[in-house]
Amino acid sequence: MNPNVPQSAIDKVVAEIERMGSQPHISRGKFRAVIGAVGEEGNLDQEHLRSLDGVEKVVPIMKPYKLASREFQQDDSIVEVGGGKVPVQKVGGSQAMCIAGPCAVENEEMLHRIARHVRDGGATVLRGGVYKPRTSPYSFQGLGMTALKWMRDCGDELGMPICVEVMDTRQVADMEPFIDCFQIGARNMQNFDLLREVGKTRKPVLLKRGLAATVKDWLLSAEYVLSQGNRGVILCERGIKTFEDSIRYSLDVTSIPVAKQWSHLPIIVDPSHAAGKRDFVPSLAAAGMAAGAHGVIVEVHYCPSEAQCDGPQALLPEVFKELMEQLRKIAAIFGKEFAETAELVGR
Amino acid sequence: MNPNVPQSAIDKVVAEIERMGSQPHISRGKFRAVIGAVGEEGNLDQEHLRSLDGVEKVVPIMKPYKLASREFQQDDSIVEVGGGKVPVQKVGGSQAMCIAGPCAVENEEMLHRIARHVRDGGATVLRGGVYKPRTSPYSFQGLGMTALKWMRDCGDELGMPICVEVMDTRQVADMEPFIDCFQIGARNMQNFDLLREVGKTRKPVLLKRGLAATVKDWLLSAEYVLSQGNRGVILCERGIKTFEDSIRYSLDVTSIPVAKQWSHLPIIVDPSHAAGKRDFVPSLAAAGMAAGAHGVIVEVHYCPSEAQCDGPQALLPEVFKELMEQLRKIAAIFGKEFAETAELVGR
Amino acid sequence: MNPNVPQSAIDKVVAEIERMGSQPHISRGKFRAVIGAVGEEGNLDQEHLRSLDGVEKVVPIMKPYKLASREFQQDDSIVEVGGGKVPVQKVGGSQAMCIAGPCAVENEEMLHRIARHVRDGGATVLRGGVYKPRTSPYSFQGLGMTALKWMRDCGDELGMPICVEVMDTRQVADMEPFIDCFQIGARNMQNFDLLREVGKTRKPVLLKRGLAATVKDWLLSAEYVLSQGNRGVILCERGIKTFEDSIRYSLDVTSIPVAKQWSHLPIIVDPSHAAGKRDFVPSLAAAGMAAGAHGVIVEVHYCPSEAQCDGPQALLPEVFKELMEQLRKIAAIFGKEFAETAELVGR
Amino acid sequence: MNPNVPQSAIDKVVAEIERMGSQPHISRGKFRAVIGAVGEEGNLDQEHLRSLDGVEKVVPIMKPYKLASREFQQDDSIVEVGGGKVPVQKVGGSQAMCIAGPCAVENEEMLHRIARHVRDGGATVLRGGVYKPRTSPYSFQGLGMTALKWMRDCGDELGMPICVEVMDTRQVADMEPFIDCFQIGARNMQNFDLLREVGKTRKPVLLKRGLAATVKDWLLSAEYVLSQGNRGVILCERGIKTFEDSIRYSLDVTSIPVAKQWSHLPIIVDPSHAAGKRDFVPSLAAAGMAAGAHGVIVEVHYCPSEAQCDGPQALLPEVFKELMEQLRKIAAIFGKEFAETAELVGR
Repeated sequence: MNPNVPQSAIDKVVAEIERMGSQPHISRGKFRAVIGAVGEEGNLDQEHLRSLDGVEKVVPIMKPYKLASREFQQDDSIVEVGGGKVPVQKVGGSQAMCIAGPCAVENEEMLHRIARHVRDGGATVLRGGVYKPRTSPYSFQGLGMTALKWMRDCGDELGMPICVEVMDTRQVADMEPFIDCFQIGARNMQNFDLLREVGKTRKPVLLKRGLAATVKDWLLSAEYVLSQGNRGVILCERGIKTFEDSIRYSLDVTSIPVAKQWSHLPIIVDPSHAAGKRDFVPSLAAAGMAAGAHGVIVEVHYCPSEAQCDGPQALLPEVFKELMEQLRKIAAIFGKEFAETAELVGR
Repeated sequence: MNPNVPQSAIDKVVAEIERMGSQPHISRGKFRAVIGAVGEEGNLDQEHLRSLDGVEKVVPIMKPYKLASREFQQDDSIVEVGGGKVPVQKVGGSQAMCIAGPCAVENEEMLHRIARHVRDGGATVLRGGVYKPRTSPYSFQGLGMTALKWMRDCGDELGMPICVEVMDTRQVADMEPFIDCFQIGARNMQNFDLLREVGKTRKPVLLKRGLAATVKDWLLSAEYVLSQGNRGVILCERGIKTFEDSIRYSLDVTSIPVAKQWSHLPIIVDPSHAAGKRDFVPSLAAAGMAAGAHGVIVEVHYCPSEAQCDGPQALLPEVFKELMEQLRKIAAIFGKEFAETAELVGR
Repeated sequence: MNPNVPQSAIDKVVAEIERMGSQPHISRGKFRAVIGAVGEEGNLDQEHLRSLDGVEKVVPIMKPYKLASREFQQDDSIVEVGGGKVPVQKVGGSQAMCIAGPCAVENEEMLHRIARHVRDGGATVLRGGVYKPRTSPYSFQGLGMTALKWMRDCGDELGMPICVEVMDTRQVADMEPFIDCFQIGARNMQNFDLLREVGKTRKPVLLKRGLAATVKDWLLSAEYVLSQGNRGVILCERGIKTFEDSIRYSLDVTSIPVAKQWSHLPIIVDPSHAAGKRDFVPSLAAAGMAAGAHGVIVEVHYCPSEAQCDGPQALLPEVFKELMEQLRKIAAIFGKEFAETAELVGR
Repeated sequence: MNPNVPQSAIDKVVAEIERMGSQPHISRGKFRAVIGAVGEEGNLDQEHLRSLDGVEKVVPIMKPYKLASREFQQDDSIVEVGGGKVPVQKVGGSQAMCIAGPCAVENEEMLHRIARHVRDGGATVLRGGVYKPRTSPYSFQGLGMTALKWMRDCGDELGMPICVEVMDTRQVADMEPFIDCFQIGARNMQNFDLLREVGKTRKPVLLKRGLAATVKDWLLSAEYVLSQGNRGVILCERGIKTFEDSIRYSLDVTSIPVAKQWSHLPIIVDPSHAAGKRDFVPSLAAAGMAAGAHGVIVEVHYCPSEAQCDGPQALLPEVFKELMEQLRKIAAIFGKEFAETAELVGR
């Protein structure tokens, strides 16, 4: 507070802090009067305090999320994806995970072909979009539930859990029986109704970071899912908006050690959407792993120029395979390990 | 393209351009081979082209939105809000509009009190949140349909159309009979299912710009609504994320002349959410009007320190009234006019 | 501090705060231990404190600049530009100033022609670049001292003080006798040697905001000049780097009320360099004035397509004249006034 | 161009392109008229074209830098640092370099102590600031030439070339005889006079990326140095300004593969200034190497809490040593190698 405010203004702030169940501590200097408020997390309404007369600034010392925080849980969370017909894959702690597949599922044949490629390359979870969030209403929007069923069959056949993006609260119940992991896209990171809805299921949730979301915002979005009882949140850094115009988004590798310091949740990177251009995908994947990520999600296509969506960022299968070899070596330096692909016995 | 690529790569690009129904024009230089593609908007799949061998860059010359563009409609759109029990208010061209009210509707009494204040101050449309998008799951989330009915009653009583935020596709049908204007929040600007859903209604849509959305992204989101047959889109600039940390968001006034050059849609500014602090709201409102906006949406509260949501940015009623007087003068300089509040005859 | 740190870590912080001459105030909560440090501004070395064991965050409550702050001087500074052969022009408080001229001085004839145009249009200070900071080494770099002498003659003839950019410490002494106001460009806002060097002169300094500088950084750069004894600092907002790619820079109008709340220094806007495109210059100039700026600096050219530098952003003389009429009206709404151009008696 | 402009406007553009020595190629569509201009790099004045009537957009296909480009030199540059009394160290291609030392040189004893630590840890070039660019005029500004001489002696004694920041054109000649490598700080990346001045020397230049500079801007600044005949430019990514507020700057790892694709110059990363906090330095260093960097520049201090400048980001010697072991392993994965520290025979 400005030290020239009348005593009554200071008294009012003190009274309000007490009313909220915290203890006020006043320190008056020549240029500022500082009132500390010590109490239980969440009891203080900062916005209310900020609006009182004479208050210049309210500085939060506490973290606003709880279940997502290291204070709440010291050890790394290990999130399990899969089960039933497909093996359980783990991510978090020393377990790294590679999710790969096409950007969008366009037909059953291409899906199977790409799925076999990524499995051979070392991916253990299959990705593939069936509802696509596209900037333009005139772009390909995905094939919906038909494509989801193809994904399920393909995952079952190859022994790979599947991870599929959900865009709308109305899709959650329909998709839940078919998927092993929900994906929430960057543009929906603050679609709070959708977060709550997937939070009510018991399927893990891959939560992409919003294009302009701070790490704090992101963990608060994770908190929406966690607060509904779903503990299976996997964070996914996928690049942020910056002034740099040579690439689509800037992969913010710093978010990885920051998120890991603040939270116990596993975190992976999506180099494909960050770069938007296949040339840069391997470098970004490697950078993410070296920064401490628990894995990657990568787009692969055997013929990117035929892809209806994001072809320019899809890796060719042989490049993906080489990349995975590098990533395994980087992971090893940091005490992490990617699961080996299981034998497809009798399939 | 790199000029050193084999002729076959150039031939492939030429063939693909022709296959898409456009005419290729080749120019070879020492350092680049440039292939122009001339044809109907939307026929060319740029991502496909970008993924072809030897292609360095695909430069779109066409705008990707149609119905939102000045090319499609030269004259400013005038959007009408209201009708039935409440008078129709217009925004666009020389018609400026002021929307005001509380951030969130907390109870019926406060709503009526604030509504009377903003009506006295010169607002002709009433705002008030009933579902609140909050960063934290532990913050006040709004009172839902109960509060919406209070809004409807209050608007009818005071002769003010109401503008209310919708957050989820499942709310659209329920809210439609009660509201005069849907509001889509910044965090939902790319919630494409929601855009389509409000696009299917015939109520106007106030579309806030996303926190990291370019003007182009924003117009493409408008296009989602327009493409469903709903022509009543009002753009709303509300600040973008930048590195500056002295305020919550930076009101991007440049987006106003840019959006007006590219599109016929009306555009207003939200200085309250941009600033996040009432001290700066009047300056930003004035700046927006001077930059060419067709109006403002402002939060007002008679006792901001009691507000459960965003109190620090709410203007006091008397400050709001003064601000409106300034805004009327600025509007007049640029040939625009705010509607006068109608007499409340017999109410 | 984390509350689980040993008492010795807390004792160390307390001892260090006392060693620096401030008083420590300890408050221990369940999740944080907070130690307040109350004392004279500048005595505390925050970086030192931040590096102590167990310290999570150091939160400055004091502003780090002094001479630039409202705490130091409550009333608006009025900065005087000119004197000697040319009339003194004032900026700050209720005095608005318009500085205009060509981007770069290319020859004597074009300079005189543009200078007469801007004088007719209402500018009272003449701008014109003689050393040009260009992104590419292959672009036109300015004509140096020859052009500066033309500027001096032209200013004297038309009764206009001149404002000229200085780029290098070695130019300061040479330029000082000829100019009425130094300009420091955005890219040099943190060229601290240059700031100190102009701070040692007694000519006013127009200090453009850096492209990625916070308002705080900017005021600290002003403090470099002020701390050398030069009190004539004029701030100039000229746009910041954001993700938006439809224009060169985003004019950050919010910086105007923020800088005015924190500092007594006058502040003007440069809509030409922000927009980079003449179509948007009038809207941005108007927005800046409405946000509370004390004036504008604008580029004008009678034939922009011939300009060797930044032609696309130069206004035509007749557009400039119209703009000035609008700006006078906006200024009047906010109790400010632009000086009238003096009669050129006997010239 | 807008297709509705009169033929005369199109003719004018065509004539201007021809006047500049390029060939125009016209393609008219329904919504746009596109005029391609094919010719030698640099002959076209884009800004001039942009200012012509009817021109909506000028799209450069050519890169504006030459000497820095891969088109100019296909193979990676190897830059040599050192010589004379100290061994030559190389950076670029498969040669990785580690530069380390204190942020600022505070006294001779601390310098020697830290220098021995970083040499033991694996650094082969010594860094240390003698002129410090500080945001506030009241912060420690460095000890100047006295400290530089200590650096020279220390480097000679330990057999390490030294890399020292230069801030002002007037310092270049004085510093040149003493240093092995000039450092240009982020805030001076577009101090064009300084770039030219170090370009005239024959000592290599470590060019940090500006806080809001695109990769293109950065390479143009490199071009300033190269165009003066100095071919020894080492790029240094040190983080950019983004909206994220949990760290000081966001290390932009994508700039590494982008700069390597566009340019033959070596590129290293500075994780210390990016993070601003030692906890995050190892992760960022590793991420930079994995993204393809040719080395790192790191700050080390045996007692960071005593450092007068940037203590919170300095690594402890033992952490630095461990980090170097990790970095060697990552480098090996990508076919790069850090030099071994030479034996200090007879010293």
